[in-house]
Amino acid sequence: MPFASDRVRAVAWREEALELLDQRLLPGEIRYQRLLSAEEVAQAIREMVVRGAPAIGITAAYGVVLAAKARYHQDPPHWRELVEADIRQLAASRPTAVNLFWALQRMGQRIKNVEGPPVAQLLAEAQAIHQEDITANQRMGELGAALLGERTAVLTHCNAGALATGGYGTALGVIRSGFAAGLIERVYADETRPWLQGARLTAWELMQDGIPVTLLADGAASALLHQGKVCWVIVGADRIAANGDVANKIGTYHLAIAARYHGVRFMVVAPASTVDISLQDGTAIPIEQRAAEELLSLGGQPVAAAGAEVWNPSFDVTPAALIDALVTERGVVLRPDGEKMAGLMAPATNG
Amino acid sequence: MPFASDRVRAVAWREEALELLDQRLLPGEIRYQRLLSAEEVAQAIREMVVRGAPAIGITAAYGVVLAAKARYHQDPPHWRELVEADIRQLAASRPTAVNLFWALQRMGQRIKNVEGPPVAQLLAEAQAIHQEDITANQRMGELGAALLGERTAVLTHCNAGALATGGYGTALGVIRSGFAAGLIERVYADETRPWLQGARLTAWELMQDGIPVTLLADGAASALLHQGKVCWVIVGADRIAANGDVANKIGTYHLAIAARYHGVRFMVVAPASTVDISLQDGTAIPIEQRAAEELLSLGGQPVAAAGAEVWNPSFDVTPAALIDALVTERGVVLRPDGEKMAGLMAPATNG
Repeated sequence: MPFASDRVRAVAWREEALELLDQRLLPGEIRYQRLLSAEEVAQAIREMVVRGAPAIGITAAYGVVLAAKARYHQDPPHWRELVEADIRQLAASRPTAVNLFWALQRMGQRIKNVEGPPVAQLLAEAQAIHQEDITANQRMGELGAALLGERTAVLTHCNAGALATGGYGTALGVIRSGFAAGLIERVYADETRPWLQGARLTAWELMQDGIPVTLLADGAASALLHQGKVCWVIVGADRIAANGDVANKIGTYHLAIAARYHGVRFMVVAPASTVDISLQDGTAIPIEQRAAEELLSLGGQPVAAAGAEVWNPSFDVTPAALIDALVTERGVVLRPDGEKMAGLMAPATNG
Repeated sequence: MPFASDRVRAVAWREEALELLDQRLLPGEIRYQRLLSAEEVAQAIREMVVRGAPAIGITAAYGVVLAAKARYHQDPPHWRELVEADIRQLAASRPTAVNLFWALQRMGQRIKNVEGPPVAQLLAEAQAIHQEDITANQRMGELGAALLGERTAVLTHCNAGALATGGYGTALGVIRSGFAAGLIERVYADETRPWLQGARLTAWELMQDGIPVTLLADGAASALLHQGKVCWVIVGADRIAANGDVANKIGTYHLAIAARYHGVRFMVVAPASTVDISLQDGTAIPIEQRAAEELLSLGGQPVAAAGAEVWNPSFDVTPAALIDALVTERGVVLRPDGEKMAGLMAPATNG
């Protein structure tokens, strides 16, 4: 399969600081925020300067590096205890994407084994998390593209691209690899209300790489699937329960039902760090409720009846039964269930 | 059933002119456009100053009055032939809602029988169309509310309210009557991208009448239905084929699939003038494609990647098989099909 590349980076470590591409301003403005403390990082995650489950995890890992630097400077013998409060603050930034907690846990483990000044060792760990994510995405790209079969159009929801990850993307990684292999002729992208990740991020990111993309209103998805041109819906995930239920951007479940109704296959692409084996099923996944303002105004301009009540869950849960393929860097699970998920997540045995 | 009223009027004839509440400006600004020619009326329909299938029909009927007035003034002996061009212009304003063509045809029939100066006679006919629509909506409100059964929350899409009709509304007429009868505890309203009829019009209209309404992103509908609080989805229609297939605002079909998946019942409310018995099924209904700009910007401000391709059908078709109840002023059709629709539309026989 030809190697495909991507031009956009959401998260970067440069000159002893974390730089985040401010995704609230895209695509109108390309501006990086330069962050120097864990508090700034937590705020950036909360306010969605950075978003996308894997990108949030990587960002939090770099946040721990910034925290350790400050705490080691403040009180060298006690930096480990002091950093714990920073990790708690980072963990409280957003509730649904489990990659955040996974990355913080991994950094916490590394902290235990640090010897001497922590910054270089923790930075190496954060950079390893970042690089492993890109490598995982390229692997998932290959695995997912291999499932596509014949040349087809695909439909995606939200942004599970380079902007949502360390690079290359999960769902958009499969799409990049599939396009490079000549298996994808066009990408349809739900605009993805209320935050418009599809319109603002996915369309922009794919246009950067010359991949043909057509935007549609979220509600138009079933009319599109009815036309028969789309054989696969491909999305990312924010948390996957032990039975294969998937939390992802609000609208994903609505779309999965429509895909099943039309006989269109439904692929979820996410690194193994997205699987939360501690949760029996999707009902246990905490769903973030976001501000009414996301529906009531846009760019500061009112777009709804003033004072209207709003229900604005940021994610929904797609039951495993609606998923045809779950693609991770560990391999592909077809029609996921508890047993298959347990097999996927079991530690590798060296024979 | 207690009578419920509504406070909003989208279309009014006042002092020899047609006044339209400019729905592009709602809810921020309440401004009426005063129209004096058929050309202005056609433009207002095209640009969605007025929208909603029944309201478009009523508007066009008044447009014929304005046309007849001008043509009779211009050339009294030949006003009938001259008006034909105006009717063609009105008919070309929007393609999907059949009420437009129905109202123009009815005005055309009336024109044949006019004796002497036409304005008063045609105005009486347009006002009859307008009043009959309100009466039909009140009747449908009763019939639809009687289907609700137990007290429940309902979900609606787009705006099928007073603003979309002569008054009272179709789907919102049922909701008004159901609320007055104590059968509806809350209305959930899809914001309805791209034009935001739910956020801008439905939420505003229901708040005017003190009916509890909660807005949600279109993609959140399945997460809502999964909660089990909503027993009915209630929507309007722009054109209904002879087999009971229904064209309505984009997203309706997506929602109907979700309703069926969750065992939630799906009600379509529309006057008999929305039924186009000449079309065998929904595939024959012309679907208007609207400008890319509706997805690319909002209030003049860009909200998507510049230059992105857009697919923006304004309507989709819900197959009759997904509809549990079709409510018209002629009566209710449960699980519509060709035979039942033919029975509904057959001329009444006086025994």
